[in-house]
Amino acid sequence: MVITVPATSANLGPGFDCLGLSLNFRNRFEIVPALETKVVVRGEGAERLRADESNLFVKIFREVLRDLGSKEKHFHFKFFNQIPISRGLGSSSAMIVGAISGAYAIAGKKLDRGAILNHAIKYEKHPDNIAPATFGGFVISMLEKNKVFYLKQTLPKDIKAVVVVPDKPMNTKYSRSLLPKEYSVKDCVFNISHASFLSGIFMSGKWEFLNLASKDMLHQDRRMATFPILKEVRKFALSHGALMSTLSGSGSSIFNLCFADDKAGLAKKLSERFREFRVLALDFDNLGVLKQG
Amino acid sequence: MVITVPATSANLGPGFDCLGLSLNFRNRFEIVPALETKVVVRGEGAERLRADESNLFVKIFREVLRDLGSKEKHFHFKFFNQIPISRGLGSSSAMIVGAISGAYAIAGKKLDRGAILNHAIKYEKHPDNIAPATFGGFVISMLEKNKVFYLKQTLPKDIKAVVVVPDKPMNTKYSRSLLPKEYSVKDCVFNISHASFLSGIFMSGKWEFLNLASKDMLHQDRRMATFPILKEVRKFALSHGALMSTLSGSGSSIFNLCFADDKAGLAKKLSERFREFRVLALDFDNLGVLKQG
Repeated sequence: MVITVPATSANLGPGFDCLGLSLNFRNRFEIVPALETKVVVRGEGAERLRADESNLFVKIFREVLRDLGSKEKHFHFKFFNQIPISRGLGSSSAMIVGAISGAYAIAGKKLDRGAILNHAIKYEKHPDNIAPATFGGFVISMLEKNKVFYLKQTLPKDIKAVVVVPDKPMNTKYSRSLLPKEYSVKDCVFNISHASFLSGIFMSGKWEFLNLASKDMLHQDRRMATFPILKEVRKFALSHGALMSTLSGSGSSIFNLCFADDKAGLAKKLSERFREFRVLALDFDNLGVLKQG
Repeated sequence: MVITVPATSANLGPGFDCLGLSLNFRNRFEIVPALETKVVVRGEGAERLRADESNLFVKIFREVLRDLGSKEKHFHFKFFNQIPISRGLGSSSAMIVGAISGAYAIAGKKLDRGAILNHAIKYEKHPDNIAPATFGGFVISMLEKNKVFYLKQTLPKDIKAVVVVPDKPMNTKYSRSLLPKEYSVKDCVFNISHASFLSGIFMSGKWEFLNLASKDMLHQDRRMATFPILKEVRKFALSHGALMSTLSGSGSSIFNLCFADDKAGLAKKLSERFREFRVLALDFDNLGVLKQG
C-alpha cells in the first residue's frame, strides 16, 4: 500500500498560522505488512532520518494504528522523499499526514480527510501545513478547542508555483525567538485586512492585488532578517514575473506564485541569479493525501 | 438630483476595521441648484443635525465640488435619513459617500465608485463602512499608503439581516479607550484566521461555520462589556435562528444574519424579547451608492 502526500507552503504572507496551499511535489510512503519491521529512507533526508523503529513516521503510524484497534505488528516501510527537509515546505506535515493516513489504510478504514486532519493537529500545533497536505488546494484553517475547521478552494491551472530552496535551513527556533510577544493594533489590523483580502483573492481568482495582499507585518521580515539574501530573492522574483513572493512557512524557502505562461521564464531567471539555490517550478495540487494500491 | 446610500455593518466579527457589508436601508440626499442655500433634514437625526451651511454633508459636498472645479454656489439640500445615528450602522459613512457622490453628479462627472471611495477615506479613517456603502455587497478592504483596495462579493438572496437597534448609543470613544494598545500573538492569530475564514465563507456561500468564524478576540466583547444587554441579544439571536450575531461597527446595534426563511421569525422573537429596542428585518444590498434623476 502506498500513501503520497504533497508539499505545502504555509504562513502565507499575512496568513500567520492559518493560510496554506498545496504543491504537486510529493513524498511517497510505502507500507507493506511483513514478518519483521524494516525501514528504508530514500531521497531527501535519507542520510538524516532514522531508519528504524524510532523513525517519527513509524512511531506516529504505530500510535494511530493501535488507537484504531489493529493487531498488525510488522511492516516494511519504504519512504521516497522529494520534499526538502527543514526548508518550510511541509516535510514534517507530509510525514504526519502520511503516517496517519497509512494507519487508516492498513486498519481498513477509508481515507476520511476531516478525521485525518484532526488527528494530525495532535502532532503539529498549527494547521496551516497539515490542512493543505490533507486536502490539497488553498486552505483557510482555524482552530477551536483543538479542533481544526477548514475551508478549501481549488486552485486553477492558470497559476503555478516557482519555489526557491536555499542550500541551508533557517534556524526556526531562533527566528521564532525574534518575534515579539505582542503586536500593536495597527499591525494586527494590517494582517487581519491583508489575510482576509488574500483569502478573498484565492477564493475569487481575481489576482490583481495579490502582491499587495500578501504583505505581512508580523513575522516574515523579522525572520528574513536572519537570512538577508531571501529579501533579494523576493525582490528579484517580483520584478521577473512573480505575482506574489512570500517566505514559505518559517523558511528558508521562498514561495513564488505566477501565471502559467511565466513559470519557465521565472524559474530560469531565478536559477541563473541564485545559482547556489534549488529552483522548483511546480504545479499546484488539489488532491491532498492519496492512497494508491 | 437624488443620491441614495445604504446602511452598512462593519468591524464584522474578527474583521476589525476591514470587513463590512451593505444593508438595503438607505438615506436619501436630494440636491437641487437654487438661488440661495437651504438645508432640510427629515427622519433620523432631524432634531440633532445642523440644517445650515455648517451641516457636515454640506461642508464635504462643497469641498469636493470646489476640488472638481464646479462654480455652482447655491443648492436646496433635502435629507431623508432612515439610518439610525450613532448606532454602528454607517450613518456617517452614508453621509460622506453621499456628499462626495452628490458633488460628482452636480459637477457632471460619472459615479466612479473607486474614486469616490478613495475620496471618502479622507473623511473617515477606516474603510470598512465606506467601502460597502459605495459598492454594496460584502467588501474586504485594505489600506496601502492611504489608498483603499477593495474586493467585493455579491450577497445572495437566501440570506437576510435582522438588526437590533438599542434605544441609546454606545459611547464609542469610551468603548474604544477600553481596547488594549497591544495584543498577544495568540489573539492576533485568532483574528487573522477567523477573519480569513469569515471572508472565505462570504466568498463561497458555505455558511456552515459562520458563527464560529465570526468570533473575535480584539474588540467586540470588550466593547460590549459597557452595554451588557447586548450579549443577551446576541445569545438570544443565535439560539433563535441567527447564523451569526456581531456587534455592528463599534455598536450599539447588533447585526444578525439568517437564512431568508428565518427572517420574520427571528425578527418577531427579538422584538418580543427586547421590547425597548428597534428590530429591522432587512435585505442585503448589492448596489451601493446610487444616483437617481
